[in-house]
Order: sequence, then C-alpha cells, then structure tokens
Amino acid sequence: MTTTLAGRDWLELTRPAAERVERLLAALTLEEKAGQLHLAGDLDADTSRAEIAAGRVGAGILSDGAHPDGTGRGSSLARTAAACQQVAREESRLGVPLLLGSDVVHGLRTTFPIPLGLASTWDPELVAACAASAAAEAGAEGLHLTFAPMVDLASEHRWGRIGETAGDEPLLASRMGAAAVAGFQRGGRFAAAAKHFCGYGLVQAERDHETLPVGPGALHNLHLRPFRAAHEAGVTAVMVGFHDVDGVPMHAHRSLVRDLLKDGWGFAGVVVSDWDGIGQLVHQGVAVDLRDAARQAILAGIDLDMASGAYRAHLPELVSSGAVDLALLDDAVRRVLRLKLRAGLLDPQGGSPPDPAAGAATPEATALARRVAASSTVLLKNSGVLPLHGNVGSVHLCGPFVEDAQALLGAWVPQPGQAGAGPTLADAAAERLGTGTLVVSDGRFSDLAVRRAETADLTVAVVGEHPSRSGEDRCLPTADLPVGQLELLQALAAVGKPVVVVVVTARPLDLRPVLRLADAVLLAWHPGGQAGPALADVLFGASAPTGRLPVNLPRMEPQGASGTFERTTGRRMGRSRDAKFGHYLNALGSPELSLGFGLTYTTFVHSGLELSRDVLPIRGGGAVRATVEVANTGARAGREVVQLYLRDLVADVVRPLLELCDWQAVELGPGESTKVTFRVTADAFAYWDRDLRRRVDPGEVELVVGPNAARGSSARLVIA
Amino acid sequence: MTTTLAGRDWLELTRPAAERVERLLAALTLEEKAGQLHLAGDLDADTSRAEIAAGRVGAGILSDGAHPDGTGRGSSLARTAAACQQVAREESRLGVPLLLGSDVVHGLRTTFPIPLGLASTWDPELVAACAASAAAEAGAEGLHLTFAPMVDLASEHRWGRIGETAGDEPLLASRMGAAAVAGFQRGGRFAAAAKHFCGYGLVQAERDHETLPVGPGALHNLHLRPFRAAHEAGVTAVMVGFHDVDGVPMHAHRSLVRDLLKDGWGFAGVVVSDWDGIGQLVHQGVAVDLRDAARQAILAGIDLDMASGAYRAHLPELVSSGAVDLALLDDAVRRVLRLKLRAGLLDPQGGSPPDPAAGAATPEATALARRVAASSTVLLKNSGVLPLHGNVGSVHLCGPFVEDAQALLGAWVPQPGQAGAGPTLADAAAERLGTGTLVVSDGRFSDLAVRRAETADLTVAVVGEHPSRSGEDRCLPTADLPVGQLELLQALAAVGKPVVVVVVTARPLDLRPVLRLADAVLLAWHPGGQAGPALADVLFGASAPTGRLPVNLPRMEPQGASGTFERTTGRRMGRSRDAKFGHYLNALGSPELSLGFGLTYTTFVHSGLELSRDVLPIRGGGAVRATVEVANTGARAGREVVQLYLRDLVADVVRPLLELCDWQAVELGPGESTKVTFRVTADAFAYWDRDLRRRVDPGEVELVVGPNAARGSSARLVIA
Repeated sequence: MTTTLAGRDWLELTRPAAERVERLLAALTLEEKAGQLHLAGDLDADTSRAEIAAGRVGAGILSDGAHPDGTGRGSSLARTAAACQQVAREESRLGVPLLLGSDVVHGLRTTFPIPLGLASTWDPELVAACAASAAAEAGAEGLHLTFAPMVDLASEHRWGRIGETAGDEPLLASRMGAAAVAGFQRGGRFAAAAKHFCGYGLVQAERDHETLPVGPGALHNLHLRPFRAAHEAGVTAVMVGFHDVDGVPMHAHRSLVRDLLKDGWGFAGVVVSDWDGIGQLVHQGVAVDLRDAARQAILAGIDLDMASGAYRAHLPELVSSGAVDLALLDDAVRRVLRLKLRAGLLDPQGGSPPDPAAGAATPEATALARRVAASSTVLLKNSGVLPLHGNVGSVHLCGPFVEDAQALLGAWVPQPGQAGAGPTLADAAAERLGTGTLVVSDGRFSDLAVRRAETADLTVAVVGEHPSRSGEDRCLPTADLPVGQLELLQALAAVGKPVVVVVVTARPLDLRPVLRLADAVLLAWHPGGQAGPALADVLFGASAPTGRLPVNLPRMEPQGASGTFERTTGRRMGRSRDAKFGHYLNALGSPELSLGFGLTYTTFVHSGLELSRDVLPIRGGGAVRATVEVANTGARAGREVVQLYLRDLVADVVRPLLELCDWQAVELGPGESTKVTFRVTADAFAYWDRDLRRRVDPGEVELVVGPNAARGSSARLVIA
Repeated sequence: MTTTLAGRDWLELTRPAAERVERLLAALTLEEKAGQLHLAGDLDADTSRAEIAAGRVGAGILSDGAHPDGTGRGSSLARTAAACQQVAREESRLGVPLLLGSDVVHGLRTTFPIPLGLASTWDPELVAACAASAAAEAGAEGLHLTFAPMVDLASEHRWGRIGETAGDEPLLASRMGAAAVAGFQRGGRFAAAAKHFCGYGLVQAERDHETLPVGPGALHNLHLRPFRAAHEAGVTAVMVGFHDVDGVPMHAHRSLVRDLLKDGWGFAGVVVSDWDGIGQLVHQGVAVDLRDAARQAILAGIDLDMASGAYRAHLPELVSSGAVDLALLDDAVRRVLRLKLRAGLLDPQGGSPPDPAAGAATPEATALARRVAASSTVLLKNSGVLPLHGNVGSVHLCGPFVEDAQALLGAWVPQPGQAGAGPTLADAAAERLGTGTLVVSDGRFSDLAVRRAETADLTVAVVGEHPSRSGEDRCLPTADLPVGQLELLQALAAVGKPVVVVVVTARPLDLRPVLRLADAVLLAWHPGGQAGPALADVLFGASAPTGRLPVNLPRMEPQGASGTFERTTGRRMGRSRDAKFGHYLNALGSPELSLGFGLTYTTFVHSGLELSRDVLPIRGGGAVRATVEVANTGARAGREVVQLYLRDLVADVVRPLLELCDWQAVELGPGESTKVTFRVTADAFAYWDRDLRRRVDPGEVELVVGPNAARGSSARLVIA
C-alpha cells in the first residue's frame, strides 16, 4: 500500500514545522500513534517487515549484527537502515520513516577515548568535537539518535559504568555532558539522549538496576544538575534509568519525569525508556501487568517505549477505554514527530539511503582521535624518565595491550569501530623509537617478560582492565588491577631497571602500589582507536600528557568516588580532608590523588590569589574577580588547568567541603607567566535548601584556586 | 546554700506527678532551666562541683575513669554518683538531683553478648532479661539512664557499629529493640534511650558521622520502624545521630524530631543529643556559631544537650531576647523533669547513695550470661564432629582468644564488666574435657600451633576480631578475618586432623574459605563475660547452639548486609535471589548463608504449609492462619526457629523480595513433631506509599514459612 505525496501534506516544507507535525498527528490512527511510540529493540528489514508495514514501529535500534560489508561502500548498518526505511516509506499506510538510534557512546567508526577519558581532558571543546565527529559518522549510517551522553554522577569506583560517565563532579559532568550534547547535535539533525534520568549513579553495593533510597535534596543539589545542563544545551531526548528512586521506579516516576523535567523545566523533547524498562515495572512489583505498566509509564511521561511492546499492545485500548487521556498519547506522539521533523524524516526525502561515502572515517577524525587520546592521558608520577628519548637504548614494551589495538578501544564500541582500530602500540612505538631498539612481550609469558626486562635498558609495562571488565553489569568487588598484574610489575621493578607503567582502565583503580614501585605512571583510561599512536606520542614526547583526574584516585577501598561529593560532617573540622576523626577515616580521609591532579612535561607555579572585592552582592549581577599568576617554570611549553573551587561556610543544609566552580586552561612557553582571572557571581553559591528552594545565603564564603582539589590558595569574601 | 524541704513542694509524694513537675518548673530560673538541659560529658564531683552547685548541670555521663575500688562495697562509679548527687542535693539552690547516664550497652558488671549476638537468639524474652539484669546493676551504681538500645538498621557488614545493632531486618530489630527497652525499663525507674534517630545505619562508604542522602520512603518503610517499636514499648528517651538526612543534620532536623517523633507519634520523653552533636552543627556548616546551634537544636526538638554546652551558654539569652519561645524551653525542661520524677529523683530521698551491695554480679546474672552466650552461637557447619565427647582424646585448643577472657567481651564494656570477666575458654574446656587431654596454643606462635595440631587428635581454633576492631569509627575496607588468621586455619587444616573453627566477631565476616576448610564452624559473635564456660558448654554439648543469623553472611564483598533489605528490581524476576542479571550480580545474588540460618545438634523437617483461607479481608481484623508441621528428626532434643516471611507482589512502591513477618521457636524431643501456626492479618502487608500514606493494597500476596530466608514453603492468598 502506498499513498501519494499529495495526501501527505506534512511533507510540504513550506508549511510551518508545528503545522506539519499536527497534520501528521491528525492523520494517524490510534494504533499508528501507539506504533510511533514503539522503539523496536531488534530492528531488521526482514523480520520486522510486517510490523513496520503495519505502522506498529516508529523507531528502532540498529546495533547488533552490524558488520562491515567489505565493499567500502557503506556498512551493513547503513544497509539495514536503508532497507527498513524503504519498508516504512513504501509499505506503511502513511509512509512515515523510522527514527533510528544506536549506542554511539564514544564513536562509531572512529573511536575516541571512553567518556571518563574524555572528561580527563577538562576540555569541553574537544569533547564537543569528538561528539560531532561521531554524529557525522552515525548520520552517514542512517542513524538519527544516540543513547548518549551519560551524565550520571558516579558514586563508587567499582561501578562498572563509571567509565561511561564524566566522573562524579557535578560541574565537570555538567559541562562535559553539555559539550557532548552540543557536539552530537551540532548539525541540527542528529539527536542526543542524556541518561539515565536521574540519580542512577548512586548504585548501592555495586549493583546496577538497583533501588536507590535517595532523597530530593541530593537529587537537586547533585544528580539533577548535569541533566539541567544538558537540557539547557538543548538536548532533544532524555532516557530514564532502570532504578527506582526511594521506592518509585523511574519508568513510573511522574513527579520527576512529567512534573519536574517536562512541566517544570519545560523540556519539550522525547523521554525514552531504557531497554524493556516499561516491562520491568511488572518485575519491580509496581505494575500488575504489561497493560498497567503502559498506563503508568505514559502517565509518568515516558514517550518512547524501548523494546517492551507495552505501548503498542495496550495504549490504543487504554485510550479508547478512557483509562488514559488521548491528550497524553498525543503529547508523546507529538514529541516523537517533532524529533523526526528535526531529523529531516518528515521531509519528502526523509528516510532515503544516506551517502555511504560519508560514513568512512576521515583523516580529520583519525587525527582528532589521536590528539584527544593523548590529551586524555593523566601523568600521575614522573621521576624524569618520561618522555623517552628516541635514543633511549633498548626499550622493553610489555603487557597484554601492546599488540592488541582492540583491547584499547574500551566498552561500547560497535563493529565498525572495532574494525577501525589503528596501529598497535608496539607498531607505533617502533616508529617513534629512532636509534633505540624495541623488544616486545605480549603479556602471555610473565617469566619471559621478566627475562627481557633484565636485558633491556628500560621497561614500559602497559597493564589494566580489558574492556569487558567495564560497562553495564560489570561492577567489581574491589578496584584492584586484574589478577597477577601487580605481581608482574613487582617482578619487573625488582630487576632494577627503570619501569614506566601505563595503566589502561575504565575506572579509577587503587594504584598506590603501582605509584610506589614505578618510575613513571601514566593513566590512559581506554584511549580508543588511535591509542597506539597516541600513547607512543606521549611516551616519546611528541605530545605532552595534559589530562587531569576527573575523579579522586582512592587511597583505600571502599572509598567513595567523590570529587566534591564529599560533604561537611560534624567530625571534619575544615576543608582539610586529613582532619577527620577515627582511624578508618584517617586512612580514608584524603584520596591518594585528588580531582584535577595531573603532571605534564613541564612544571607550573601558582602565586598570589587576589580578589577584586571583599563583598559580593547577592543581587544585581555584581561579580568578584579572583586572579592568580601562573608561571611555567620548566623547560618546555605546556598546558595548565587552573581550577577554582568554592566553599559555603554556613548554609541551610550540609554543603560540600569543596565544590568545583570553574576552570581555565592556559598554554605557556618555558619561562612564561600569565594572570588567570575568574569571574564569580553570587549565583555560584546557590543551592537547594531543605524546602527545595534555590537560594544564595548572605555570609562568609571561601574561594580556592589551585592546580587540583587538594592544593590551592584560598581567600574569603562576604556575600551580602 | 540549702533550702528546706518545706520550700520544695515538688518533693511531696502525695501531689499528682504532673503537679510536682510543674511546681519545680515554676521554681527554676531561666539559667537553672538551661542547666537542667545540660548533660555534662565529664561529670566528676571535684571538677564539676562549682557547676553543679550553680545549677548549671542537670545530668551527666558516668563512664570514664570508672574502676573497682577493691572493697567489694561499690565501685567508683557509685562513689562518683553519690558525691555528685550530694553536691546537687546540698549545694545547689533547689537541690534537684542529677540524672546520671552511661553507655550500658550489653551489661555493666555482668557482660552479656554484644547486641548482634543477642539478636542471634531470636528470643526477645532473653534479650529483655539481659537488659533488666544490666539495668539492675546500673541502678545500683546510681545510674538512671543508658544510651541504649541501638535500633539502627545496618546497611553494610563493614560498618564498625553493626555489632551494636540487631542487624538489618526491620522486624527483628524492632522486636529486639522493644525487648531491650522493656527489659531496661522493667523496674519502672531506669530509662532506655533508643538511638540513633534516624537512618544512622545507612553509613556511606563505611564512614560514621556521614551524610546520608536518604529519602522519606526508605525512612518510613525501613529505618523508622524500630524507633516506632521502641516508642510503642514505652522508651523514655531517644538519641539523635551525628549524621545528616539528605542534607539536614539530625540535631537540627525539626521535621523528623519535633514534627514526626514528638508531635506526630506523641513521644513524650526526652530527646538527647549525641556527644557534642549540637556543637557539631557548626562544623556541619548549618549553624553560624554555638548560639545559632543552640537555637536550631531547641527548635528542632532536642531536649538534652550532651557535652556541647550550647544550651546552658545561650538558651537564657535566646529566650530573654525573644529568639526562642519560653514555651519551647519549658517543654524541654518538663520532659527532663518527668524523666527525673520517673527515676525517683524528685522524691525526698532522690539522689541518695544507692545500695552498693545491689551492684554485685549475682549468680543469677552470671548464669543468665552463660545461658545467653551459648544461645547466641550460630552453628554454620557441622560434619558431625560437634559436639565433642569428653573422651575425644587429645584436643588442641588454639587461637588468640583461648586464654583471654577480656577479648571475648566485645566493645562497649565498662571497667566493672572488664573486671568481671569469667574463666577463660581454656580453663572452661579443661573442666569439660573428661578423660581427654587438652593442649593449648595461645595464638602467639603459629608454627607451634601447627606442630601441636599434628600431635593432637582434633584442633579447635578460635579466631576472629579483637573487640577493638568493632565499635564507633571502626569501619573496615573489607570484612575479612584479621591478617594471618585464614593462613593459620589453612595450615591447621592441611595437617589432616579434624578442625573445628569458632569465629568470634562483631560483624558478619566473609567466612566462605573457613566454611570450606573446617569440619565445623561455630559463629560466636562476642559472647561476653561468660564466653569461656558458654563456648565450652556448646563445644562439649552441654548446651546446643540455637542461634540464628540476624543478617546474611556475605558471599562476596561488597554485599549489602541485607536481610530483607533487598528490594525487588527490574532484573530480579522472582523471589529467588539467584535469578539476577549480570555476572557480578550472579556472584553476589544470594548470600553465602541467609538471614535466619542456623544448625543445631539435631535436625528438623518442615512440611505441609496450609492456609486457613484464600482471601484475607483488608478491614475487619480477619486473619489467615498459616500452619506447618515441624518434626525433630534427630536423636537429641532441640529448638527450632520457624520463620514466616511475606511478599507483596504488586504495590505502589518497590517492596522487599521477602520481608520477615513473624517467627516462633519450638522445643521438640527426638522424634517429636508439632504444628506451628502463624496468625496473619492484612495489616502485616501495610507499607508507606509514594505519598507517605500507610496503606494495604488489595491483590495477591505470598507467605513463605521455613527455617531461614533462603528455604521454605510458599503459598499465595488474596487480600480483598
């Protein structure tokens, strides 16, 4: 069955957008409306043909089974997309194309560092550039939507998904999330989905899909902030989480989703369920059956039903029986149609096969991936052995990652990205080495590695987590290195030659023993498809490591991931984290290395914090300028991330010991110095009080400027 | 300065109690009223004399420096109490005696098992008897108040204070807390203080004094329940915790303390601060200074100021300046005076020296401590080696506890209790041994212990935590045995002779490796002053181990302490805890041993769960009777704890996978059987919904009856 263009007046580009959406909405039957709200989890042109043709599918996920077709003219992702759209356009009654989404988390063909690594750059523009590149590659495959960025604030290092986040600092997560949204959506067509609304980072006892007995104060002062930032960045979709908040599953949480996000904030985009999240309301014991689950989810404000089938099976009857108001259904469909309109799917050529050539990884994307991978590395220790000189002599490069480019990609890498991994670290290092020699141990024989360390001048050991140790349902009991790796490092160190350790990981591991035994430690996260060249760039000094920790590194497990998550308590007398009470607290009090920490190949000195005024008015928009002088005291140009933290000394509720307020990066040549000035308004001290009112208090506050959360100069001023 | 009896008309016993309180209240100056609200943390007749005489002290803690005086005629506790009271009676203007409190947690002279051990008896009458005994000993020292029981629901095994709790199961904690309250207060004069209101068990990242971002749903459905039970048991005092709830410190939490506890529940007793808790409002960053802290605390409903001095320093001025209503001050003083009246302190002889003879540990108390210590042991594994026969041959008894009776007492034992510890386990075992021989290794030389194990017929190894590893600020990163103990056990097991392991602990440790290597494992908690005889009774069969786990034993750390704390999630499909999703969850899904588990020296078989009806009316008080048959199938008389759990299949909020509903203990001779019947009303399924309304839903529910939370017969019925 086909209809003529003449009958499809929503295709007429000359009409106002809202009118086109309304015309299409009016043309849909009740069943077709419910179909528009069904996001198929297993879309395939063959098995899904009848459903698509019947108008029972409005959107779908393209991910599984994707593989390159070997022709260089578009992958099977693009071919599946084109085939499904053809069915939708030509065989469904109204010919409305499908909205196609996938988990494009840190790249599609070109793989960038994992989100925690991206956050380590402290560089929103780089993050946006990566997202824009990924969106371009995804769009070329026929995709319109990614289920990213994840803006949850992690609360435990051992959580398997911390690598998908920007850490646990609300401002860092907000800015990185907003940057990713802006990047993904830069072209105006591709859509991002901020997830997992809200509080999902507060997993208990290291379990995903968990119940979170969290209260509204913590939600407003912490966990909602990055979602608000994503909303203000114009995010077009929000995904809710599998968890429940204080007993109420998010897929049925009307007060947070409909009342706060949609009605309160004015979010006009699409709220999408997580996989089978509506169906799981039955398992969570708040819905009697799938019909009841559909009813509760649409009332709560969930627009798109991912995979459960509850909406298309029950919404028509729920509306016709009066159990659900038609206006609620129409509102959800309208949101989905607006997203399709934005994606160009309601245009005459909407859903046409994309240009396969556009899907190839460009040299620009590859170069970006290499640059960002280098920028995301955090130098934790350096006795002077790094960077290596090309004539360093005999270098022994060892560990399971050195000849495995795939293992450096990280989790959530679709097949095109797996296929697009670049040179191995061993190959890239060989290119960089110059007159030296390279010996490689691939990590299979520890005794052979020790033997080779004895004959080499220096060993670079690359250890850490295989990507399968991170991601959904990959929580760990402790944040140790994988079994046996520390023992290998100890044996290598016992040889007596210099040892450089590169740690590849998706979570902040307990690296204290590594920091003790190694001459240099480089934290690389999972650097992505250009990991080999990028790590070689950093090791041999072609790039400097400029990353900064986006989370604390723990001194002992269990220690909260906590950047400025740390709250004031009765036993912590001041800002110092060592001034805690009790022997366990003393052990845990300060992290091994703090939020914002990172060395580079030169050194910086901060001096002279000066405030432009002593009193900051609450209203009127007045600002204080906080200025420090930063000098490059080393022999090489470099980048310093100057960080501003704040502390509210007295408030209506317990506030953080320190809260990240702003940061600026400066590039300085050797011997150069500059003044760095932050402009702070009273609104920086705003918080939600016990009655959930946002407020700024008069009184004394503190500003701290320094190179990381544990060091800095402080000055007080009065808000009045 | 003294006044005559004639001027003290509140002393006249013939007047109604309320009138006596009002007359005294009317006689107090503003400063004296504030003084009545000051609980001195360091009471001493010499250094506190001037303050007491000036009417600036209303109550005090007697604990530090307590030591026996060697005369057998009363301890220094009693002498300090008498001296302080003499100052109060004779030198203060109105002669009002002091209210004297102390941390009498599990005994004073006679030390019972730690609270987690007491909870393992699943026997509220025993718990009440222990508390009554402790109160009698405390009263004889001149004490009127204990800062116990702790009714917080633990949420992590590694928490240092879990041993002070009854675990994490709301019903078990409620019944044990209510029993302790009833026991402490049995004589009508001594007062108990339920603590730490509320939610304090939810420590994050294993830290005490922590911020708890908990919401009202979890508070109402879990953490408030034991406090409600203590209130209904008539508890005369409640202590608030150091923590904050979702940003609001409990010492300033008006809505939970004044509005809910006092005005909502009608609690007419005294709310006492924790040590310096009012002063710590400044450190918590919600009060500007101590005056502001005093103002916030009295508004919030804190009556007694422990140790901070905020009240006596600032309340008079706060009232005279109008910042605090006099009625609020009077209400707090009235509550304290009522507590004094109840303690007999407003009687003509109130505050007179107690009878020192009454303070001696009685044979009855000693016998009770021995019986309860035996009853609190939980037999986790028994290949048949226990009980030991007197003619077992050569028994090797080893480990750090076997010749150290003090180390078996547990935390929170005052000096009289330390001095009153009974025989060592080595001595008690020697008495029990009969014709066998006993070789003792005291835990200093592990190589010697292994050597002796080789020559003995059987080894009993007593390992576990020194009391200093538990208590306030004694959290652990993991719940392992202390360093080296597992290795010693492995070496002992490698000898090839039978090994019985007794684990002494204040928290549920990860005992999986011990359960694998040992022939029998007895979990003893910290058994108290009669640990030696009691453990010998159990090992040699004079007593049977009848304790049941009050918490799950973990399969892996980190695992929530969780008895019925476990909530339904989208990924757990049913009641089975093995039906979880993901590899980490599968590892953690079910505990090693579940709530309620415990073997004994005979065996029981449950059969035939029958319900008296299929439909249970919501209203009208109708009940269903659930009956099982329990048979003792072993060769010895024994005690079985038959447990009833329930599950609400569909509710407004996420509910527990299983919730303890009731239990009954039965004693059966060998071959005997009996029917056990539980009566369940619809109210057992009541919970707090998302609008914080208490409700029972119509619909299908499930009852499960069995010997522990992991095993049982289930039946469904409909609430209508």
